[in-house]
Amino acid sequence: MKYIVLGTGIVGQTIAAKLFSLDYEVWMGTRDVEKTRSRTEKNQMSGDSFASWYAGNSGIHLANYADLPSDCDGFINATSGGASLDALNSVGNQKLKGKIILDIANPLDFSKGMPPSLSVCNTDSLAEQIQRSFPEAFVVKSLNTMNCFLMMNPSLVPGDHTVFISGNESSAKNTIKSLLESIGWSSENIIDLGDITTARATEMLLPIWLRLWGSLGTAEFNFHIQKK
Amino acid sequence: MKYIVLGTGIVGQTIAAKLFSLDYEVWMGTRDVEKTRSRTEKNQMSGDSFASWYAGNSGIHLANYADLPSDCDGFINATSGGASLDALNSVGNQKLKGKIILDIANPLDFSKGMPPSLSVCNTDSLAEQIQRSFPEAFVVKSLNTMNCFLMMNPSLVPGDHTVFISGNESSAKNTIKSLLESIGWSSENIIDLGDITTARATEMLLPIWLRLWGSLGTAEFNFHIQKK
Repeated sequence: MKYIVLGTGIVGQTIAAKLFSLDYEVWMGTRDVEKTRSRTEKNQMSGDSFASWYAGNSGIHLANYADLPSDCDGFINATSGGASLDALNSVGNQKLKGKIILDIANPLDFSKGMPPSLSVCNTDSLAEQIQRSFPEAFVVKSLNTMNCFLMMNPSLVPGDHTVFISGNESSAKNTIKSLLESIGWSSENIIDLGDITTARATEMLLPIWLRLWGSLGTAEFNFHIQKK
Repeated sequence: MKYIVLGTGIVGQTIAAKLFSLDYEVWMGTRDVEKTRSRTEKNQMSGDSFASWYAGNSGIHLANYADLPSDCDGFINATSGGASLDALNSVGNQKLKGKIILDIANPLDFSKGMPPSLSVCNTDSLAEQIQRSFPEAFVVKSLNTMNCFLMMNPSLVPGDHTVFISGNESSAKNTIKSLLESIGWSSENIIDLGDITTARATEMLLPIWLRLWGSLGTAEFNFHIQKK
């Protein structure tokens, strides 16, 4: 399997490292490879810089968006929500058409103070914006309702808890379900909500996620859908 | 304890009947008592009409909004979200000032097709609109993230699952926590998110609630916050 992770922040790093540990071929896309490789400021969450992280993960390929390969099992959008469309445009429609885009980003708007609100919601979503911009790609929204460490290691929170999935194409969703299962998500905890418009619903979980983070004092929690 | 339930639909009926069964004094407020008492059309969810339901619950008082008493432990807004401010205005600021308003409504907007979107969200909420309209009342948002049968009978869904609470006044939230516990919610499953602006977050759960209802084929589920 070969995945291309867009974004080199802590989310992109966590995903890339996990997939690489599963023996996947992993590429990371960024705006400027030289600039990215020279980043020595430490991330608050990991306590590590990109430069030092990358030195320890040199089997992962790093390329400018425009120089990424086109043959892959899927692209993973791990850029920040506000930068996602620009990043995907830099990759280009030619490479994205016919490909899965696993979109894990959220359209957080930090311009109106903390906690952030959403720049799009209710009657539209970032995932739908991406699908409309790249109509020949297969956008699948998932994993956007938890922090990146839990995304890639569901056992960080004990017991059953839920990961949602949205997308128009069943085959693309099945590929992502398999990816989730290889990461450690049990199939019973994966809930397929339906088409890509259901991504509105999961992106709109961010406000309560942020409030729970404040209220519980930890980011190590997840939503579980408790059924009869 | 004496609670005044605003709204006589299935939600109001379910809440009023539960509180009455707990030996609370219960009033229900409506726009037009005579019209409400003569309602013989059956509710899809309960299979019962208001007239027939009320005949079996005659210990519950029914009054026009303007004729409700002012002495009570709290008002419960069980009107539909689009009608809530009108209903509360009909009760009047004089009766509401200094009182708790437990707001369980959601600002659903059915004008843009199904599933409904929200008429207010992201940077405002129905609960905040109510608090701004009645600044001397103590608005507490809770119970709006599940269907009315589960609100009043948490054991309908087995195991632990969560009810959220938002409000500016700790004492008002404590009163509502006691009410929730008397209904059967364990204190560990009540999460206080913070001030009334956190109601944005719980009202924004409605889109995923509606999608899960469609996806799971049942309304008998709830969110549980699974922690480390």
